[in-house]
Amino acid sequence: MKKDFLYSEITNNIANKIKLGVLKAGEKLPSVRKLSSQHGISINTAKRVFLELEGQSLIQPKPQSGYFVSDLAFFKLPLPETSSPIPFAQNREPDELMNEVYSTMGRNDLTLLSIGVASGNLLPLAKLKKEIIQATRGLSEGGSEYEPLQGNIKLRRMVAARSLTWEGNLKEEDLITTNGCMNALSLCLMALTKPGDTIALESPCYPGILQLAVSLGLHVVEVATHPVYGIEIEALKKLLPQIKVCLLVPNFNTPLGYCMPDSSKKEIVELLTKHEIPLIEDDTYGDIHFGPERPRCCKSFDKEGNVLWCSSVSKTLAPGYRVGWVAPGKYKEKLLRLKLVHSLSSVTVVNEAIANFLMTGRYDNHLRRLSKTLQENYQHYALAIADFFPVGTKVSRPQGGLTLWLELPHEIDTQTLYHYALKKGISISPGRIFTLQDQFHNCLRLCISLPWSEQLRLDLKQIGSLAKSLQQQPPSLRTAGRACS
Amino acid sequence: MKKDFLYSEITNNIANKIKLGVLKAGEKLPSVRKLSSQHGISINTAKRVFLELEGQSLIQPKPQSGYFVSDLAFFKLPLPETSSPIPFAQNREPDELMNEVYSTMGRNDLTLLSIGVASGNLLPLAKLKKEIIQATRGLSEGGSEYEPLQGNIKLRRMVAARSLTWEGNLKEEDLITTNGCMNALSLCLMALTKPGDTIALESPCYPGILQLAVSLGLHVVEVATHPVYGIEIEALKKLLPQIKVCLLVPNFNTPLGYCMPDSSKKEIVELLTKHEIPLIEDDTYGDIHFGPERPRCCKSFDKEGNVLWCSSVSKTLAPGYRVGWVAPGKYKEKLLRLKLVHSLSSVTVVNEAIANFLMTGRYDNHLRRLSKTLQENYQHYALAIADFFPVGTKVSRPQGGLTLWLELPHEIDTQTLYHYALKKGISISPGRIFTLQDQFHNCLRLCISLPWSEQLRLDLKQIGSLAKSLQQQPPSLRTAGRACS
Repeated sequence: MKKDFLYSEITNNIANKIKLGVLKAGEKLPSVRKLSSQHGISINTAKRVFLELEGQSLIQPKPQSGYFVSDLAFFKLPLPETSSPIPFAQNREPDELMNEVYSTMGRNDLTLLSIGVASGNLLPLAKLKKEIIQATRGLSEGGSEYEPLQGNIKLRRMVAARSLTWEGNLKEEDLITTNGCMNALSLCLMALTKPGDTIALESPCYPGILQLAVSLGLHVVEVATHPVYGIEIEALKKLLPQIKVCLLVPNFNTPLGYCMPDSSKKEIVELLTKHEIPLIEDDTYGDIHFGPERPRCCKSFDKEGNVLWCSSVSKTLAPGYRVGWVAPGKYKEKLLRLKLVHSLSSVTVVNEAIANFLMTGRYDNHLRRLSKTLQENYQHYALAIADFFPVGTKVSRPQGGLTLWLELPHEIDTQTLYHYALKKGISISPGRIFTLQDQFHNCLRLCISLPWSEQLRLDLKQIGSLAKSLQQQPPSLRTAGRACS
Repeated sequence: MKKDFLYSEITNNIANKIKLGVLKAGEKLPSVRKLSSQHGISINTAKRVFLELEGQSLIQPKPQSGYFVSDLAFFKLPLPETSSPIPFAQNREPDELMNEVYSTMGRNDLTLLSIGVASGNLLPLAKLKKEIIQATRGLSEGGSEYEPLQGNIKLRRMVAARSLTWEGNLKEEDLITTNGCMNALSLCLMALTKPGDTIALESPCYPGILQLAVSLGLHVVEVATHPVYGIEIEALKKLLPQIKVCLLVPNFNTPLGYCMPDSSKKEIVELLTKHEIPLIEDDTYGDIHFGPERPRCCKSFDKEGNVLWCSSVSKTLAPGYRVGWVAPGKYKEKLLRLKLVHSLSSVTVVNEAIANFLMTGRYDNHLRRLSKTLQENYQHYALAIADFFPVGTKVSRPQGGLTLWLELPHEIDTQTLYHYALKKGISISPGRIFTLQDQFHNCLRLCISLPWSEQLRLDLKQIGSLAKSLQQQPPSLRTAGRACS
């Protein structure tokens, strides 16, 4: 344990120096031997540190010369700023814009860079189909019957077993299945809040979570968030007295893609537990890690059942199956009651199929392939952005997940850019939908899960050109395209 | 239209006279010719009236002699009383009892007379399995992809087409799919209420609806309900100023099984529309009619989009598929938004399978068989109850659906009976879980959807004997078994 912690610390330390620009592109790193003696770690551990960093595209080996900081043009692009939301700003929903962006869901005449799900060709569809057919044949009543309230036992057993990969040590009785992760988050929020309560979220935040909070009558406090480290703990501390619940996406958060360091995860769990504020942890993206190590979850630091850990297979296997779950800690009875009255049962056959799929052991292979492809896509995107986007564009450094976050020069309005791009057949997510405040007008999210192609490069070029043309318009015209969808 | 209305009026009129005991068991009815001339209807319409009444087991033909009021022993059993809940009583959840009853869900060592779903052998399981397999093979990505937000278009088209059977005239764009009917009710209540609001329900009421309302922080007003006509409109009228939403199950309501007369449906829709109180209509049981006519829904009288009509295939085809829907009238946008944030998508493959099944045209045949079997079961149960239950037991007259409601002599505590029966391997639903008030202590619900058998007759005999033994205990011991589960 202690050794693992040291290994993570060293890796994160170097990774952060690279991301923050302390170590520059092309700079040489110490040798394996030197790293080992500097930190008092074994040669093997030092090698693992470099492999992890290479996995994150942060360093590259050169034959006979050792490791160097990646000189991808991308790493010359600056990082986005730490966000600076106003702590108790009045919540203003980007209603109309949300509706517009979501209405493009399922349109196959568009390049959908706005939808954060893996495209079908990245998923093991043939195997999943087979599992559905076998589950239908195998279940005594073909899946027509209700499940037990807590959910499919084999699925819960497999999710519990897999929790070892993030030091979770869950048991099957700790878990309740749900209709995807959004349904898990919805049940958690209903269990823990009443309208008028205040909830703390990262900023920028996944629009679905913002909308869910609003739909439950909650007041949202957006907390300053660093693009590499995640939510600013000091900022969060100041808000604690007003907060009823905290909801975080610490692993490969969309849109930023960061992975909160273990030390921060531990600190936040202890802080919230001390203040008796439940933490809802959305770990939907945790399995999609670009580095070799599956990151830990906040739940793994939870000693008192104060963390409600939620996840699903919607981003890694099958969005349309709606197979998700929650480990609700000490709130289990409340959650079960809510599941009973709001949805009664999950869908029997798809839960059985996913349970069986996980039992085949193919999931890990699939995750490796999926993550590798997404990481390659990320590098393709980064190079295209460096080539085609306006000077001064800042880009996130996702360590996993499905999305990239861009901060364009401040004079570019991405709501206008959204409409211009849509006319060219490309759908992007404008920054404003990731907040309930007056911020991120010059930001946007790109989904990196479409298969890479020359056409996609041209689409990114197109967005870059549109952004440049917007930049050159006189100020009075820069937001003129907002309404012209 | 007018002719249909006359037909319904005459049928209901005779039906009610029989149920209320105005026409006695064994009494002869007028001839077809006489009925026709009495009411100025055609011979064919008069014949339809008698067929409908025969379908409801209310009358029996005797060769060469005409129709007689059924002389089933059953019809000598009195009807339960109109309920008399206290209008603004403090809501008291039967929490522990609910948990006990629901924990028997899925136990296959018990005779489950407590669970209101059709047993597998009443369902077209082989055909449904085939549909799942074909849907999995047929969908381009095997159902792994999200559906459009509003739901499977073929399913919505089929549900819309079927709405003609109850004069609904819905179109596919009027419908949104949901994860079963409970999820539809949950979304409707979330759209229309905030905590602290008051909602009017029938009394007795399905426990799931009571629990759902409580979980959303709503205050429940239970309204006096007649076992044949449904909710008392005069009682409802007095409560209107305090009510935010009304939720009714007008067709084959569980537990009572009544079918609200068309004239009442019309009156309630007009009344609520006038007072701008939305009506959520749960029509889950509407397709399970013992008579030949599918009853109309309140929605069919709705001119202003004030009725949110909810239903599913959970009671008629496959509980475990969670395929339901809502026609939310003028609240469509609100409902769509809530579906987006609380569940995002229905499960693609099961919705496609049900859509395809409905398109085969087999559903109507299946419904006829299902309803016929349930009606036969109802008659078996009624005879057993007449034979074995304490003198003075009152029994509902379901015209469809899956359940029977019994009112035992007032000194019998059904919570104690529940525990005694459980020890004998039989699970029933005690009356107290159908209310948030201090009522129905001597009532119980029996599910009539298990396949009829001699064993089931013996189980009913067992319950009857236990009830009789409870009746004979000294008053101090009558509730002694409440806690001994």
